[in-house]
Amino acid sequence: MRTRTPTRRPRLTVEKILAESARLFNRRGYHGTSLADIARAFRVSKAAIYYHVASKEDIVFRCYQRVMDLGMEGLDHARARSAAPDEELRMALSHYIKGLTDQWSGAMVLFDERVLSPRQHARIVRRRDEYERRLRDIITRGIAAGVFAPCDPKLVGFAILGSVNWILKWHNPAGERSPKEIAEAISSYLVRGLQSSPGDLSGSRASAAPGHAIQGTSRAAGDA
Amino acid sequence: MRTRTPTRRPRLTVEKILAESARLFNRRGYHGTSLADIARAFRVSKAAIYYHVASKEDIVFRCYQRVMDLGMEGLDHARARSAAPDEELRMALSHYIKGLTDQWSGAMVLFDERVLSPRQHARIVRRRDEYERRLRDIITRGIAAGVFAPCDPKLVGFAILGSVNWILKWHNPAGERSPKEIAEAISSYLVRGLQSSPGDLSGSRASAAPGHAIQGTSRAAGDA
Repeated sequence: MRTRTPTRRPRLTVEKILAESARLFNRRGYHGTSLADIARAFRVSKAAIYYHVASKEDIVFRCYQRVMDLGMEGLDHARARSAAPDEELRMALSHYIKGLTDQWSGAMVLFDERVLSPRQHARIVRRRDEYERRLRDIITRGIAAGVFAPCDPKLVGFAILGSVNWILKWHNPAGERSPKEIAEAISSYLVRGLQSSPGDLSGSRASAAPGHAIQGTSRAAGDA
Repeated sequence: MRTRTPTRRPRLTVEKILAESARLFNRRGYHGTSLADIARAFRVSKAAIYYHVASKEDIVFRCYQRVMDLGMEGLDHARARSAAPDEELRMALSHYIKGLTDQWSGAMVLFDERVLSPRQHARIVRRRDEYERRLRDIITRGIAAGVFAPCDPKLVGFAILGSVNWILKWHNPAGERSPKEIAEAISSYLVRGLQSSPGDLSGSRASAAPGHAIQGTSRAAGDA
């Protein structure tokens, strides 16, 4: 007689709920995804989801918070480790990109901040402004040190953030490039545009390898 | 006796409808904006709007089409005028950025492609792919000619598009920087990251002018 082993469900965590929700929001849109859909994806009841998060808006807010954490972490990490502003910028961006592509691929919820409450929105905006200020500060220090060519730190800061955040639009977790490769190639390119004496670009070997598939299904039609 | 001059309403055009709709979608979200809202903004009837566009979806589709036209126009223009790939890339991007900031500021409709019908979506995706292919082609030619440092044209192509498209997230038409200044500073930075022997960055004077306000109300909370 065979004994039945009870099905072991992997433990539900906030992290898992956020990642799956971001995936669903991305595929079907925020308005097209209900908490019931999210519960269904885990084969649990809505109550089980409510145990971890307060609402759908709460999920979006937490997603934003994690993304901000990641960005700040990159800046702190780089600041603690590096001396030269170009290396500091490269490390900060690389950490952020690696995190986005590792944990957050498809989290296009990023583009949908209108669902946040005014209070949540204000909190995110405060942190975002702080992040931007610190990014511009690295650029300004780099110019002062002669490591970066003179430029408008605000415009270049926005250009950098655009490149980085846009990754969520095209990145395919099943693609051939690892998060580390993407992080190195893009952060290296973005820093190089500023450097007074730029060196090689990383990820250059890839130019010889045609047809690598990094194109995701999650890309928007508007990126050209 | 005073005669009454009839109020002259400026003529309603598709262009004006698209621009105003993009502005409203941006402020209130696509789902939060009705055709009645758009009609109200022009103080006309819904019928007057329907005379020019078929539906709300149609507006989004046309917005996308214009953006693609603008991108392609930039590429054609640059191709026809320029010899060196770095100058070609700079011109193509500059044209696109200038158009986006001139005519399309706030057209965040760009991030909302889910509202398109499958057929419309396929049409836009075809053009977007074509745009990306041409952009990568300039990068590849530049590498072959030794004008650009070796790199992965696909990843760098995405990085460039991200910077450029993200402009719609932060650009404030009432800000201090003109479309031309933004176009020059950002295209110059993006090309410089690729050049084998990079020169100065344009827009460098601005680094001495603190506090210029380019921050728009339309920015998303996620850009950090």
